[in-house]
This record gives sequence, structure tokens and C-alpha cells, in this order.
Amino acid sequence: MGRLRRRSDTIEFLENAKDVVELKPQANKGKWKDIFGNDNPIHVELGMGKGKFISEMSLKYPEFNFIGIDLYDELVRKASEKAYDLREEQGVSNIDNLRLVLMNIEKIEEVFEKNEIDQIYLNFSDPWPKKRHASRRLTHTNFLNKYQYVLKDKGEIHLKTDSVSLFEFSLNSFADLDLKMKNIKLDLHKEGTPENHVFTEYEEKFVEQGMRIHRCEVILLK
Amino acid sequence: MGRLRRRSDTIEFLENAKDVVELKPQANKGKWKDIFGNDNPIHVELGMGKGKFISEMSLKYPEFNFIGIDLYDELVRKASEKAYDLREEQGVSNIDNLRLVLMNIEKIEEVFEKNEIDQIYLNFSDPWPKKRHASRRLTHTNFLNKYQYVLKDKGEIHLKTDSVSLFEFSLNSFADLDLKMKNIKLDLHKEGTPENHVFTEYEEKFVEQGMRIHRCEVILLK
Repeated sequence: MGRLRRRSDTIEFLENAKDVVELKPQANKGKWKDIFGNDNPIHVELGMGKGKFISEMSLKYPEFNFIGIDLYDELVRKASEKAYDLREEQGVSNIDNLRLVLMNIEKIEEVFEKNEIDQIYLNFSDPWPKKRHASRRLTHTNFLNKYQYVLKDKGEIHLKTDSVSLFEFSLNSFADLDLKMKNIKLDLHKEGTPENHVFTEYEEKFVEQGMRIHRCEVILLK
Repeated sequence: MGRLRRRSDTIEFLENAKDVVELKPQANKGKWKDIFGNDNPIHVELGMGKGKFISEMSLKYPEFNFIGIDLYDELVRKASEKAYDLREEQGVSNIDNLRLVLMNIEKIEEVFEKNEIDQIYLNFSDPWPKKRHASRRLTHTNFLNKYQYVLKDKGEIHLKTDSVSLFEFSLNSFADLDLKMKNIKLDLHKEGTPENHVFTEYEEKFVEQGMRIHRCEVILLK
């Protein structure tokens, strides 16, 4: 986020991008099905950054609905520009299965109803390495409790990160809450990138640099 | 194990080391309390190698009983020599809380009764990196099922390894069996070695070389 240029017309831009951007997501609580106009599963990325992952996922899997969330208006703008550009590139006019949301993840329970969503992605979340910031890590048990509320039974959390410290912290958080883990990987791209893999911006860079990517899935059994 | 010299008198040595070596451990099944002459908790290291860890543990924690197991007679001899030497060094004559056992870990259920032991240590176990050898890894679910049998309720498995692949495999095995993990560490010595830490031979070498040590505890809830 550090070097992202702040443009003066960003709020105006977002207000005009109503086909993909949600600036008042609280109003959609319990009604996301209606927003998407179907009963398809809803997958949410918490901290989408510049939006490559969520945009590509939404194009690749039209049978799912995707919501990308970020705290910074400039990133939501970047992500919506990405979504428009990708669709133009691929000659797809339809953007119906993607929504980009400006909000603080702490308020996730104000935006989604109990059991409203099917999957959460946490991709290269800020590791907040200092101990006094532990509660800001997106896999802190305080956050996990909120995710458990908004996720359905058998809903999943998919985490990937380059950060050893965040991954270690996350495994312990999952274990502390007795969450069922699966497909734990300490070096995701070791034997070649998995088929159908969608990279994030960070991931592309890190894998090029030969850094290890850690990954874990959690399946909720309510 | 590769470069360990085989001595011609090893069987004779082991037969004469009856105060610490058990060559017929099956006979002790269900009776380890009697062997130790007390009700103290029993901790077992599977694959003790040259025995530094189990010997030091037994000196450090006289209120526990320790059993070191290995498949190779030459290693059981080395480990017993280590036990004698360490006690001589420290002026301790008593070796009552340590037994070294020559056996194949696959037969653990023939040597321990159901719920007979309190803790299992797996230290730097052979990673058996080839897929076709996966069932030989000491955290394969086949082994874990045996450990669950011989361990008590709230018994623990403590794993440490330098091997990324074995650690990844182990975490997935624990998760697959819904075993409760705790104190997961992806870089055990990162912030300095934990207090009261007992090193294995491999661990000393690897930490000197700056390699990361992975660690995980499992607590059985029967």
C-alpha cells in the first residue's frame, strides 16, 4: 500500500462504479443473494489489495459469486479498474458475479448475516510482526470467531502467505479453536504450481524470487 | 546411521547392560510401572539415535520415567554408553528412570499396553522423502493410530524436525485424524533457544548451521 498514489477523484470514481463497487455494504446484510440475483455460493477475499486474485477468480468461476474487501478507497478503485480491464481484455461485458467493497474487516458481522457466505480467502495478509499488534492479524482468534459467524456449515477459510511468522501464528489460532485444517502446504509451488492456480500480485513476485509460499485450508464443522 | 561402525561384541555388550537395556521388551507389556518400580509418568522417544536427548532428559527430570527406542543394536549400545558416561560425568549412580529398548517401532503395541504411556517424542525422524515410502514416516496415520492406542487420555506427542516435507506431512496427518495440536513452531530457535531445552545431536548441528527447526505438540483427547 505504501507507494500507492492517492488520486483526488477517487470517491467520485467509486460512486460512479456502482456496477461493481459497494460503498454502503451494511445495507446488503442478509441480502447478498438478491444483489447477485442468484443462489450461487459466495466467496469473499479479505484484504484484496489491487484485486488481481478476486477479479481473475470471478472470471474463471462464473458459477460462484465473489466479494473483494479492502479498507482503502484507492485499492478498491485499483481493483475495480482491474476488473474492468480484465473483462475488456477477455471480451466479457458481464460483471454480475463480482462486488468490491470498501470497509473495515472488523465490521464483517455488520455486512454479512450469520451463515451467509461460503468461503473466505486470506491472501498475503499483513503479518503485523510486533507482538503488541497480534490482534490485528486477520487470523487472530477474535477475527476467526467473526468468520465462523458469517460462514456456513462446511464453509472454508483458505489462507496463503509468504510470512513464516503469520503462518505459524495462524496454525496455532486454528488449532486453539479446534478448527479442522486440511491441505497444509509449507512450500506450495515446490513441485510446480498447482493446476488452475490463481496468483495474487505478491505471490507472483515472491515465487519469482524463490520464496516459499505457505498455505492452509480450514473447513468449518458447525 | 550411515557411518556408524558396527562392533563385533555389541550383542554381548547389550546383554551385559541389563540395568539400562531391554532386549525382550514384549515381556514388559503392561508392566513398565513394575520395571521402574513407581507410578511416575512414562515418556518414550521413538528413534532415539545415539541417545543424547533421552539420556539428558532422564537426568534432568528424575520424576519421570524415560524409554528410548531404536531399531539398531549399535545405536542402542551407543545410547547406553552415553547414559553411563553422562551419569559418571554428573556423579549420578542411579539409572533407574531410563530404559533403552531394541525394537521395531511398528511393534509398539506388542510392547506397551493400551493407555500405558504418557508422552511420545519424535525427534528428527527419517523424512522418507519418496512418496512410495510415505507409510514408513513415523507420523503416518498408521503409526499415529498405534500411538493413540498406547498413549493415555491427555497423552502427548512432541515432534521436532528440520525437514520441511516431514513437518508438512505430519501436520496434515494430525489434522486428518482430528488430533489437537498446540505450540506449533516453524522456527523454534528464532528468538533464542527456549529455556530448559534439551537438544538432540542433529538439532545441535542444524541450529549451528542456521537451519530452521519445526516443532509441534499433539494432545490426545480420548
